[in-house]
Amino acid sequence: MAKVYLVGAGPGAPDLLTVRAARVLATATVVFHDALVHPETLALAKAARLVDVGKRAGRVSTEQRFINRALVEAAKANGGVVRLKGGDPMVFGRAQEEIDALEAAGIEVEIVPGITAALAASADLGVSLTRRGIARTVVLATARVGRDEDASGWIAAALAADTTFLYMAGAQAAAIAVALIGAGKPASTPVAIVESASLDAAQRWVGTLAGLSLEAPRMHGGPAILAVGEVFAHSRVAALLSPAVAA
Amino acid sequence: MAKVYLVGAGPGAPDLLTVRAARVLATATVVFHDALVHPETLALAKAARLVDVGKRAGRVSTEQRFINRALVEAAKANGGVVRLKGGDPMVFGRAQEEIDALEAAGIEVEIVPGITAALAASADLGVSLTRRGIARTVVLATARVGRDEDASGWIAAALAADTTFLYMAGAQAAAIAVALIGAGKPASTPVAIVESASLDAAQRWVGTLAGLSLEAPRMHGGPAILAVGEVFAHSRVAALLSPAVAA
Repeated sequence: MAKVYLVGAGPGAPDLLTVRAARVLATATVVFHDALVHPETLALAKAARLVDVGKRAGRVSTEQRFINRALVEAAKANGGVVRLKGGDPMVFGRAQEEIDALEAAGIEVEIVPGITAALAASADLGVSLTRRGIARTVVLATARVGRDEDASGWIAAALAADTTFLYMAGAQAAAIAVALIGAGKPASTPVAIVESASLDAAQRWVGTLAGLSLEAPRMHGGPAILAVGEVFAHSRVAALLSPAVAA
Repeated sequence: MAKVYLVGAGPGAPDLLTVRAARVLATATVVFHDALVHPETLALAKAARLVDVGKRAGRVSTEQRFINRALVEAAKANGGVVRLKGGDPMVFGRAQEEIDALEAAGIEVEIVPGITAALAASADLGVSLTRRGIARTVVLATARVGRDEDASGWIAAALAADTTFLYMAGAQAAAIAVALIGAGKPASTPVAIVESASLDAAQRWVGTLAGLSLEAPRMHGGPAILAVGEVFAHSRVAALLSPAVAA
């Protein structure tokens, strides 16, 4: 039976890949990868043809159909087909569309999980996402919504949760803070932004929703995740120990 | 400066450890580990003394103080001290208490993230946690609360989110379903339970909140995570392909 491995590349640092993912890459014949996967991670696929299917702004739906079709065709022609996605494949990766297309074509899919950006940011900040008496619930969300999607769902989840991560938040950070304050989240709620989590180029900024609503920090244009919640008040400690943009 | 590595062992399968975690273990001199870490993962720490600090029911707070003190003492005496936790160290791992104790003693802490159980369960089920038009928010929570903690926080988060994971839910699964239905979650909401995610011994059960509220499935006593949300309706497909307890 034809098979495709849907593999998480992790948050960025090549050694935050799982041992299983490294092994699958080593025997791959073709790897369809996202735009931001580290060159050292791609180099693990020694014998493979590499196909960059990273999405470009404004061409999302066309590209996804292309990816689905390319995966099916490759799996029918070869063994060792890998679809390599940043972070974990099942978190904001449109994995289900690829899984559904492959299964509809009679192709088996094996998922290899990866470290998602929220966990890498937590490690970078040195802050536990849960903490007895302070935080028992963690939300992973995004303020980016498709044309046909409800824009308010992420706000309700962020209000209900103790600790919230908003993926792909770089350009929208100030607008997110304004929306959360407007919905009733206290303006004094601590926030942290981690850009390029887990990489040497990582940038960290810590502050409050109020400060963020007035002016988002200038980062360096890498993928950024916004963390919101009382646990991040503590992040100042770790942030002071490492390169950080002052709040 | 003395240093401790706080390392995620991942969900269970030894090859779902990160490459960095494997390297840190290989040079460890002492490893303080949770009860459920796989023997093959522990075997990576070839030169280390292994100390099982797995918590036992009813002795939680005494044990945590013991762990904190033992980590500080070991770090002052040796390099290569590793604290190895199941899953990701920053998700329901009481990591902050250990980090705070170490930093108060002037000891550096480096976090190595791990695959958390929700991501392993998602891979096992073959179901993406986010899906365009269906699920844009994911909650990680637990219905287990300490004596001094608010029991209702997890319910509010589960109601607000599209996809919810409840960690350590094995014994409480039916009670959780009753609570969610009572709070207004539709009784027809699909659920999945994955026990021992990522291991050969993994057990999967899929059904609805209504079914679960009447009778929780008999699992095998391993660590279990309960997944709730429309995306898991789809899980029946994957569940039928692999060993599963029928709903």
